[in-house]
Amino acid sequence: MKVNGKSYQSIWVNKDDPCSIQIIDQRYLPFELKICTLKSPEDVIRAISDMQVRGAPLIGVTAAFGIYLAALKEKKSSHIPDRLMKYARQLKASRPTAINLSMAVDFIMDTIKNLKQAEQIIVCSFSAARSFLDKEINACREIGKHGVEIIEKIYSENGRKPVQIMTHCNAGWLATVDYGTAMAPIYLAHDKGIPVHVWVDETRPRNQGTRLTAWELGQHGVAYTIIADNTGGHLMQQGMVDLLITGSDRTALNGDTANKTGTYLKALAAYDNQIPFYVALPSSSIDWKLQEGIGHIQVEERGAEEFLYIEGLNAAGKIESLRLCPENSNAVNYGFDITPSRLITGLITEKGICGALKNEILMLFPEMK
Amino acid sequence: MKVNGKSYQSIWVNKDDPCSIQIIDQRYLPFELKICTLKSPEDVIRAISDMQVRGAPLIGVTAAFGIYLAALKEKKSSHIPDRLMKYARQLKASRPTAINLSMAVDFIMDTIKNLKQAEQIIVCSFSAARSFLDKEINACREIGKHGVEIIEKIYSENGRKPVQIMTHCNAGWLATVDYGTAMAPIYLAHDKGIPVHVWVDETRPRNQGTRLTAWELGQHGVAYTIIADNTGGHLMQQGMVDLLITGSDRTALNGDTANKTGTYLKALAAYDNQIPFYVALPSSSIDWKLQEGIGHIQVEERGAEEFLYIEGLNAAGKIESLRLCPENSNAVNYGFDITPSRLITGLITEKGICGALKNEILMLFPEMK
Repeated sequence: MKVNGKSYQSIWVNKDDPCSIQIIDQRYLPFELKICTLKSPEDVIRAISDMQVRGAPLIGVTAAFGIYLAALKEKKSSHIPDRLMKYARQLKASRPTAINLSMAVDFIMDTIKNLKQAEQIIVCSFSAARSFLDKEINACREIGKHGVEIIEKIYSENGRKPVQIMTHCNAGWLATVDYGTAMAPIYLAHDKGIPVHVWVDETRPRNQGTRLTAWELGQHGVAYTIIADNTGGHLMQQGMVDLLITGSDRTALNGDTANKTGTYLKALAAYDNQIPFYVALPSSSIDWKLQEGIGHIQVEERGAEEFLYIEGLNAAGKIESLRLCPENSNAVNYGFDITPSRLITGLITEKGICGALKNEILMLFPEMK
Repeated sequence: MKVNGKSYQSIWVNKDDPCSIQIIDQRYLPFELKICTLKSPEDVIRAISDMQVRGAPLIGVTAAFGIYLAALKEKKSSHIPDRLMKYARQLKASRPTAINLSMAVDFIMDTIKNLKQAEQIIVCSFSAARSFLDKEINACREIGKHGVEIIEKIYSENGRKPVQIMTHCNAGWLATVDYGTAMAPIYLAHDKGIPVHVWVDETRPRNQGTRLTAWELGQHGVAYTIIADNTGGHLMQQGMVDLLITGSDRTALNGDTANKTGTYLKALAAYDNQIPFYVALPSSSIDWKLQEGIGHIQVEERGAEEFLYIEGLNAAGKIESLRLCPENSNAVNYGFDITPSRLITGLITEKGICGALKNEILMLFPEMK
């Protein structure tokens, strides 16, 4: 997608030094477009846990390259496979909720499992990470093509008025590699000339909606309005929303979906007001071993300082942090919640759209039976 | 209630000059306890619309004193009643959603409607405003006594574990004159030695939870944990909440309740998880002429800058404002939403607890039939 007219992805192999990876450090957006170079598996682990990169598909891809950087680092070790196993474990543990992380690491490790020579491992892990990245881009492109049909249908049924779409958090190209999951159908609709307007949830505590989704949409020229997370119910009750689409950090086989905290509340309001609520996700976000989500997906607890303090731009144009609460306040910060499948109208995947039900998911992905 | 051990109300007659009123300017909390003196009806209108005072019961009481200050200001006018009518209209229009505002102004205007002499009008409007204030304090005290029975019942049924109560926005003593509405039962339970723990919703965009409720609870020594508004659904789903209590800005006769934006989402989650959801309100928050709320209560739209910018304390200990969004972002800021009565377990009023139903409300208040 474009930034100031120039094409970007959220992650890429460094053109000047293919032994390193480059990312957009998302902690500085929308105030500053800062490129960051990752040279070691430690850099990758830190980038994931500190949320320089975030979004389930993107952290998967970043972790995939983490194995490649680990292979480079350990090329002179006597037991490379053992060393890589250690990094694989650390990478998987760098954030707990998104399944894409272990999916990606397992995919790379599986590709190199029978190799012994350093050069082979380096080349194969690089090649596998590249394939994984390409697969994720392709999945998002396909999600866009399937999802846009939902938007087109609403557009024609609603008398060709602009389609009002609500989203939560950022499931755009910044959360993937390109296009996005929830945002892919929206960008495609816009590019096809269907008028869309996006209600962007602020998404406390880290404000990914205000900071990332609004920025993405603005750069691409899509109409949007930022709202407080609290406002969505009112808008839905007032008939101001036609459709909700969010991403997923992990979807169980029965369709239960872990996503950014607050998604469950929006799904409840959509259900109460009979508004379709779709989850857009590549198959790398499906936990094929998990029969149901509620009570079985680990919900990450992050530091409370993430919302007792806040970052923004001060009058001097500098990024600054402010304290929001009384001194010595207690707070908890759960990063995700789990939306039961009964509230989800459908899943938009790279293979097509299906109900949030085991048999329908497996009809689209029979190879996973 | 106490601040650093000293008793405070949120509004009082200035002891040094009873021709003026004093308030806590709530825009500076929790960082600074700033007392502000209101000397004219214009001061009162500004205090309400700029949210130096907020909370439906408190803005009612403040507006009541606004008529008294208007009478003082216009004491030499030839047509005092006409002048006061003008101020009454302006006071009622200073914020649109809370019914307490017109309830209070109408009460004072009704008291003085047959008076002509300036001194009579001044004394009577003062006396009526004082009575109105006392009535609100008393209502909150009674709400506490009725509401605490719900907490006591949960405490004994749950094996005497601390009762986990969630609230949204600030419906504490700062929102009333003393005790609070939603908070009155919580303070009383705490004072009676029942262990309670309060989940405090941050309450974007103005953060009344983080800034006011957390501060109040901390001053009174009640255990609390601040959470992002998005987190409540997860906590309820995980069985970490026994009870929800919020205030009301306007409750229709059928029980539909306008309250701070986001309340509806919490009510949906409480219903989905079979957790009791109570609305605590003095009868001054009931709109006796309104048969139903949804679609009939004006929901205030405030400036978007209220959540595109944010105030907090910087490293130097100064209150500062930061921009949170990309430049030129679109945003809307609806201050309230309306919770349908079907999601409300009951109303806690000064006359007792009833279902959120017209016949039950009128059984408690037969004089309003």
